[in-house]
Amino acid sequence: MVSSVLWLAVVWAWGVLIAPTPTLAADEPLPFAVLVTYHSRTGNTEKMARAVVEGARSVPGARVVLKRVGEVTKEDLFTSDALIVGSPVYWSNMSGEVKTFFDNWQLKFGVFPEFKMRNKVGAAFATGGQVSSGKEVTMLTILAAMLGNQMIVVSGGGAFGASATTEGDSPGIDEKELAAARELGKRVGEVTVLVKRGARK
Amino acid sequence: MVSSVLWLAVVWAWGVLIAPTPTLAADEPLPFAVLVTYHSRTGNTEKMARAVVEGARSVPGARVVLKRVGEVTKEDLFTSDALIVGSPVYWSNMSGEVKTFFDNWQLKFGVFPEFKMRNKVGAAFATGGQVSSGKEVTMLTILAAMLGNQMIVVSGGGAFGASATTEGDSPGIDEKELAAARELGKRVGEVTVLVKRGARK
Amino acid sequence: MVSSVLWLAVVWAWGVLIAPTPTLAADEPLPFAVLVTYHSRTGNTEKMARAVVEGARSVPGARVVLKRVGEVTKEDLFTSDALIVGSPVYWSNMSGEVKTFFDNWQLKFGVFPEFKMRNKVGAAFATGGQVSSGKEVTMLTILAAMLGNQMIVVSGGGAFGASATTEGDSPGIDEKELAAARELGKRVGEVTVLVKRGARK
Amino acid sequence: MVSSVLWLAVVWAWGVLIAPTPTLAADEPLPFAVLVTYHSRTGNTEKMARAVVEGARSVPGARVVLKRVGEVTKEDLFTSDALIVGSPVYWSNMSGEVKTFFDNWQLKFGVFPEFKMRNKVGAAFATGGQVSSGKEVTMLTILAAMLGNQMIVVSGGGAFGASATTEGDSPGIDEKELAAARELGKRVGEVTVLVKRGARK
Repeated sequence: MVSSVLWLAVVWAWGVLIAPTPTLAADEPLPFAVLVTYHSRTGNTEKMARAVVEGARSVPGARVVLKRVGEVTKEDLFTSDALIVGSPVYWSNMSGEVKTFFDNWQLKFGVFPEFKMRNKVGAAFATGGQVSSGKEVTMLTILAAMLGNQMIVVSGGGAFGASATTEGDSPGIDEKELAAARELGKRVGEVTVLVKRGARK
Repeated sequence: MVSSVLWLAVVWAWGVLIAPTPTLAADEPLPFAVLVTYHSRTGNTEKMARAVVEGARSVPGARVVLKRVGEVTKEDLFTSDALIVGSPVYWSNMSGEVKTFFDNWQLKFGVFPEFKMRNKVGAAFATGGQVSSGKEVTMLTILAAMLGNQMIVVSGGGAFGASATTEGDSPGIDEKELAAARELGKRVGEVTVLVKRGARK
Repeated sequence: MVSSVLWLAVVWAWGVLIAPTPTLAADEPLPFAVLVTYHSRTGNTEKMARAVVEGARSVPGARVVLKRVGEVTKEDLFTSDALIVGSPVYWSNMSGEVKTFFDNWQLKFGVFPEFKMRNKVGAAFATGGQVSSGKEVTMLTILAAMLGNQMIVVSGGGAFGASATTEGDSPGIDEKELAAARELGKRVGEVTVLVKRGARK
Repeated sequence: MVSSVLWLAVVWAWGVLIAPTPTLAADEPLPFAVLVTYHSRTGNTEKMARAVVEGARSVPGARVVLKRVGEVTKEDLFTSDALIVGSPVYWSNMSGEVKTFFDNWQLKFGVFPEFKMRNKVGAAFATGGQVSSGKEVTMLTILAAMLGNQMIVVSGGGAFGASATTEGDSPGIDEKELAAARELGKRVGEVTVLVKRGARK
C-alpha cells in the first residue's frame, strides 16, 4: 500500500513536471492557433490566403483565423501560435498596407520591448505581376520583420514561401500556385506543432 | 539673303532638336533638380535629410527641394532629375509611410506604364536604432523600388547609401553620419550632372 | 500490492507512449548537436564563432562542433540538429568560401531532392568593416540558403543574427559583439531543444 | 551673306565648346566597352549572356567582350565602361564562382581603396530552376556588390535585371527570356552612352 501511494506521488509529480497541460489524451492532437493575414486589392492575394488556410487546417489541432491586415487585433496577434502574412508586390516590396501592419505591432500593439511574438512560427506568401519583380523581396522582408521580433521562421511551397505570378502566360492564380499556398499552410502547421509540443514540459 | 535665311532655319531647327535649352554659357553649370524626401518621427531621419540637401547643393547647378514623403506632389516627383529617399528602420525595412509613398507613384501619380521616372538618378538613406537591424534592407529595398521604375541608382556615403545608428554608443546623429549624408547628396548631384549632360547632345 | 503493480504498468505504458525515446531520466537534458562553421581570414569571424560556440554550450544537452567551412564533412552536416554559419562581408555579401560551402551541399553532399537539412535549426553571424556595408545582406542570404533547404530559421544577438563591425571606432571584436555571438548560440540551442523535443513522441 | 557666315561661325564655335573631346564627327557614335561575364554549368546562363551581348551590340559605339567569370583579367575589368554579370541561382544566391569573382576584385585585382570601378555602369542577370527561388536575390546582391564599388547601377529586361526560369512549364531559355536579356544589354549600352558622354566636357 505504501509503495502504491509512493507511485501515485511519483506519477503525479512527473505529470506536473513534464506532461502537457492541460493533459491531452494520447491520441488527441495539440491544439494550436494560426493567424493568416493579407492585403489584397484584386483578389489574387486573397485567393492564395484561402489556400494557405486550407493547408493549415489540414494539420490536426489547427484553429485558423483569416483576416485582412487592417482588421487584425492585438489579441489576434498575441494569442496566435503562428502567423502567415501575404502581400501583393508593389514596387519590389510588400504593399504599404502590409508594412503599416508590421509598424503597428509596435505603434499600436506594443510588442516591444517584451518581444511578445517571440517563438511564434512565421511565414510569408506573395503575389506579383511578373516572374522576378519583387515576390522574393516581399517574402524575405516579411520574414526579416518576423526575425526582428524573434519569431521562428520557415518557408514552404517555395524557397521563401508560397508565391504566384498573376500576369503573363498564366494570369491570376492557377492550381499549381494554390497547391504551393496549401503546402505553406501545412508546413507552418506542422512546425508549429513541433515547437508548441517542445515548449510544453 | 536666301542662304542666310536658310542657315537661320537650319540653326534654329538644330537648336530646337538637339541644342541645350536654354543655351548655357560655356562656364555655366547645367541646372538640375534634386528632390530629397523622407519620413521622420523623432527628427533623426530629418537631420540626415538636411545634410543630404547640403551635399546636393554643393554641386554647381543644383536646385534642391526637401519634403516629407506625405507632401510630395506629382509635379515634385516628375520634374526632378534625381530623387533621394530616406526612412527610419521599422521592423527591418522602410516605414509604412515611405512604402506608401512609393505605392502612390502608381496609385496616385500614375507613373506606369510610361515609366515616368525612367533615367532619373536615385539613392537612399536610413536611420536605425541598432547597427545591423534593417538599415541595409531599408536602403536596398528603396533602391529596388527605384530600379523597378527604371531609374539609375547609386550609393554614396556608404555601400548602399548614407546611414546612421541612433542608439547605443553614439545616440542620435553624429558628425560622421552627417558627413556621410552630405557625401551622398554630393554623389547624387555629380552623377545627375553626368547623366543629364550626357542626355543633351 | 496489486494496485502498485498496476501503477507500475500504467507508468511504464505512459512512458512508452509519450516519453522521449530513448528514455531520458526526468532531469536529463535532451542531447542535441550544433555545428558552428565559418570562414575567417583575419581572425575576426573566428572570434565570433568561438563565442557562438560558448553560447550554444551553455544550453544543457548541447554537443557543439566548430569547423571552418572547408573542413565540414557530409556527416558533420547531416548529423547536426542545428547549424550556425558565419562569414566576413566581402562586397556586400558572404565570402566566396562560404557561398561555395553552401553550393557543395548539393554538388558534393547531395542534400537535394530529399531535403536532408529539413527541420534542422539554422542561424547566421557576420563581421564587416563598416556599419552598413553588407552584414545584413550576408546574414539574410545565409538564412535564405537555409530556408531553401527547408530549415527552421532564427535570429539571435541581433535582428538577423549576431554581427560585429571590425573597423572604425571599435576595431576588431569587442565585448558587446562577443556577447551578441554568445546570445545567438544560446538562442539556437534553446530553439533546437524545442524543435527536437517536439519531434519526439 | 555676311549673316550666314556669321551663323556658320557661331555654329562652329558652339560645336567646339560643347562637343566631346577628342572630337567625334557629328554622326560618329561615342565608343564604349561593355564586359559581359557569367558562370554557367548547364549552358542556360551562357545563352542568356549571349543575348545580353547582342542587345549591348545593338547600341552604336559598343565594343562588347564576353567572358566566363574565371577568365576575366584585371585589364578586362578596369578598361570596361560597363559590366553585366550573370549567375545561375545556387541556394537562393549567386553561385560560389560568381561570388569568388567579386571577391577577386580586391584579392587579386586591388580595386580598393581607389574604387577603380567607380562610375562604371553595372547590371545583372540570373537563371534559376523555379520562379521565386533566388533570382531576385542573385540579381540584387550582384547589384549590391557593384554599389559597394561606387558603380552606377541599372535594371533592364525586368525589375532587377533579366532573368530566366529554367524548369517547369518552359524548360531552358525561351524566346521571351532571350528578349529580356537583349533588352538588358541594350539598356546598359544606352545608359553607358549617357554617362560616358556626360563625363566628357
